[in-house]
Amino acid sequence: MSIKFADRMKNLQASEIRELLKLTERPEVISFAGGLPAPELFPIEEMKVVSLKVLEDMGKEALQYSATEGYRPLREHIVKREKIFGIETNADDILITSGSQQGLDFCGKVFLNPDDVVVVESPSYLGAINAFKAYQCKFVEVPTDKDGMLMDELDRVLAETENVKFIYVIPDFQNPTGKTWSVERRIEFMRLADKYDVPVVEDNPYGELRFEGEIPMSLKYYDKDERVIFLGTFSKTFTPGLRIGWVNAKKEILEKFIFIKQGSDLQTNSMTQRELSVFLDMYDFDAHIEKIKNVYRSRRDIMLKTMEDTFPEGVTWTYPEGGLFTWVEFPEHVNTRDLMAEAIKKNVACVPGGSFYPNGGHENAIRVNYSNMPEDKIVDGIKRLSEVIKEAL
Amino acid sequence: MSIKFADRMKNLQASEIRELLKLTERPEVISFAGGLPAPELFPIEEMKVVSLKVLEDMGKEALQYSATEGYRPLREHIVKREKIFGIETNADDILITSGSQQGLDFCGKVFLNPDDVVVVESPSYLGAINAFKAYQCKFVEVPTDKDGMLMDELDRVLAETENVKFIYVIPDFQNPTGKTWSVERRIEFMRLADKYDVPVVEDNPYGELRFEGEIPMSLKYYDKDERVIFLGTFSKTFTPGLRIGWVNAKKEILEKFIFIKQGSDLQTNSMTQRELSVFLDMYDFDAHIEKIKNVYRSRRDIMLKTMEDTFPEGVTWTYPEGGLFTWVEFPEHVNTRDLMAEAIKKNVACVPGGSFYPNGGHENAIRVNYSNMPEDKIVDGIKRLSEVIKEAL
Repeated sequence: MSIKFADRMKNLQASEIRELLKLTERPEVISFAGGLPAPELFPIEEMKVVSLKVLEDMGKEALQYSATEGYRPLREHIVKREKIFGIETNADDILITSGSQQGLDFCGKVFLNPDDVVVVESPSYLGAINAFKAYQCKFVEVPTDKDGMLMDELDRVLAETENVKFIYVIPDFQNPTGKTWSVERRIEFMRLADKYDVPVVEDNPYGELRFEGEIPMSLKYYDKDERVIFLGTFSKTFTPGLRIGWVNAKKEILEKFIFIKQGSDLQTNSMTQRELSVFLDMYDFDAHIEKIKNVYRSRRDIMLKTMEDTFPEGVTWTYPEGGLFTWVEFPEHVNTRDLMAEAIKKNVACVPGGSFYPNGGHENAIRVNYSNMPEDKIVDGIKRLSEVIKEAL
Repeated sequence: MSIKFADRMKNLQASEIRELLKLTERPEVISFAGGLPAPELFPIEEMKVVSLKVLEDMGKEALQYSATEGYRPLREHIVKREKIFGIETNADDILITSGSQQGLDFCGKVFLNPDDVVVVESPSYLGAINAFKAYQCKFVEVPTDKDGMLMDELDRVLAETENVKFIYVIPDFQNPTGKTWSVERRIEFMRLADKYDVPVVEDNPYGELRFEGEIPMSLKYYDKDERVIFLGTFSKTFTPGLRIGWVNAKKEILEKFIFIKQGSDLQTNSMTQRELSVFLDMYDFDAHIEKIKNVYRSRRDIMLKTMEDTFPEGVTWTYPEGGLFTWVEFPEHVNTRDLMAEAIKKNVACVPGGSFYPNGGHENAIRVNYSNMPEDKIVDGIKRLSEVIKEAL
C-alpha cells in the first residue's frame, strides 16, 4: 500500500528523551536523563485508601462518562492551590487535561496555523517543542541569562516578527536549565506582552517544588488583560502515571480548549480525577510536598557538590532553587551527542542539550536530572560522567 | 486582548450530544440521547480488588511514567480478544489510547491536510466527524442500506474523488443507525479499498455486544494488504470513565501514531492500564460481557415493542442485532431538531439525526439509545416520545 501521511508528519520524530529512556531501562544504568519523580515518594498506601473510598462512595460516577471540563471538586481544589502563585481564579476557568503535555498540545491545536510563530526561551522544553511542531509552526528563540528571558531581545523579536501566536515560557525552575525568572523580568515580560498584545502560555510544572526562598508570583499574577494561559500538573507533586494536569484561562479561550478536548479524547479519566480530589480532601498535600522537597533538595546538593569536586575546569552548571534539573555547559567544541554515546557505555545517561533548541545548534550542554536517583547513585553517576567529560575535553 | 485562533477553530463547535447531555442531567429526564453504558453493570467490587492488587504488587510502576505504547500485558490481552473478530495480530502492533475517541483524533492528525477527503457512511458517528473536522478535511458521504455501505456508490466516489486519505466505517452496530454490514459487503468493500489503494479506519466499539447470531469477521480479517487501522475500546464492555481504547495497525502506520501520542499526552494512565490488565487476568471477561448483553437485549426488545405499540404510521426504525442504538426515521417534512425541543419539555431526550451528516441535511431522523435506562423508564420514555411525534406528524 502507498500511504500518504499528513505534511505535519515530516517534522516529527520520536522524542530523543523517550528513545534514550528505553536504553536507560537496563538496571545497571544510572540515569539522569528522564524527568522522573522519585517513585519511593509516591503515596501508595494513601492511594489504596482513596481508590476504595471512591469506588465505595461514587463507584458508578467514577466509571461512567463525565463532563469534558473535569470533576468540579478537583477543579475547586486547583483554584485553591493556584493561590500559591498569586492567582485568583474560579473553577469555571479550569479544564482538566491528561497531564500538562495535553495542555501543550491543545495550545498548538487552538492557536497555530502552519508557519505561525511561537516565541520560546532558548533553550526550551523538548515536549512543548514537539507538541507545537505537529501544527507546523516556526520557532523564534529568545536568549536567556540567569534571571530569565532577555527583555531587550524579546522586545526586538516581538517588534520584528509577524504572526506570533503566543509566547511559551517556564519561569519557575525552567526545563531544561533549572533557572527561575526574577520578579523584575516577570513584570517587564507582561508589559511587553501587553504592548504587543500577544497571548502567553505559562507552563508551571515544578513551581511548588521550591527548596529555598519564597515562591515568586506567577506571570498570571501580573496579567492585567487575562492573556496568560496557565498550565499546571500533578505529575511532579503527586504522581505522573495518573496523567492529571490542567489549563487555566479566561472563558473566551478556555471554551476553545474544551471543544478541542471533546474531539481529542472526550474527557480525562473519571475515576482518577475523583481519586486525586479525595486525596486532596483527606490528606495534607503541603506536608506531602514538603517530603518531596526535602529529598530533592538533598539530591540536588549532593549532585552539585560532586560536580564541584570532580568536573574539570571549563565546565559550568546552573544552581536550581527547586525543580528537577540542572544544566551543564561545556566549551563550544564539545558535542554532547557524542559525549552521551560514550556515557551510555559507562552506564550513565543524561540528555544532550541540542534537543532543547528548536532551530538546532548549541550541542555543548546537557540536562541532568537529580530527582529520580538515590544519593549514592548520584555520586557514583556524576563521577562516571566526570571521567567521560575529562576524556572529551 | 485581540486573539487570533487557528483557522481550524472556525469549523468547530461543542458537540451537540454533549451539550444535550447537560440538559438531560436533570433526574426527571428520561434520556435516550447519550451513548452511556448501564452503570449498574459496572464491576465496582472487582475494581476494588484489582485497584488494591495493582497498588500492592506494582504500585511504583503504576504511578510512574511508562511507555508511550502502553502496558504490554494489556496489549497482549487485546491481541487475544481481537481473535473474536478474526484478527491475527501481535502486541507490537497495538497502541493504547485514551478511549477510541483519541484513536479517531490521531487518524486525523496522522493523515489529514486541509481539504483532504475522508469518505464516510451517511450518516456516521458525530464524534469521529468532529475529530476529523479539527484537521480541516472535507467529507464525502456514501449512502447505506440495511446491509451497510452501498458498494456501487463507493466505487463511483473513489473513482471520482481526489485526495481521499482514508475511509472511515463502523461495520458492527453502526453509530447512529445500529446497522451491521453483511459479509458480502465486507468482502466487496475490501476489494474496492485494494483497487483504489486507500487506507481504511475500522471503528468497532460495540462488536462484542451481539445479542443474537454469530459475530461476523471484521474488515481487518479480509485485509490482504494491512491497510486497515482497527480501533477498539473497553468503554462499552468494561467502563467508559477509565478511558482505555486502542489502535491496531501495521508497524509503518502505528509508529506514526506513537509519535503523535508522545506529543499529545505522552501515554495513557499507567495505573488504569494495569487495573484493566489485572481484571482481565483475574475475572471471566466473556461472562461479564454476557451479563451486559442480556440486559441490553431485553432493553432493546422492550424499546422496539413499545415503538411498535405506540409510534404512528409513517415512522420506521432499525432492528439492531447488538450495540446501543436504534435509528428512527420520519417523513421528510419532520424536523427533528424542533421535535427534540418539544420532547425535552416532556422530559424525554434523543439526538436529532442531522448531527450525524457531516455535510448537513437529513433532519428527519433521531438516534435512540437503549443501554442506559431501566425497562420501566424505556416504556415510559418511548410513550412520551410517541405523543410528541403524533403532534408533529
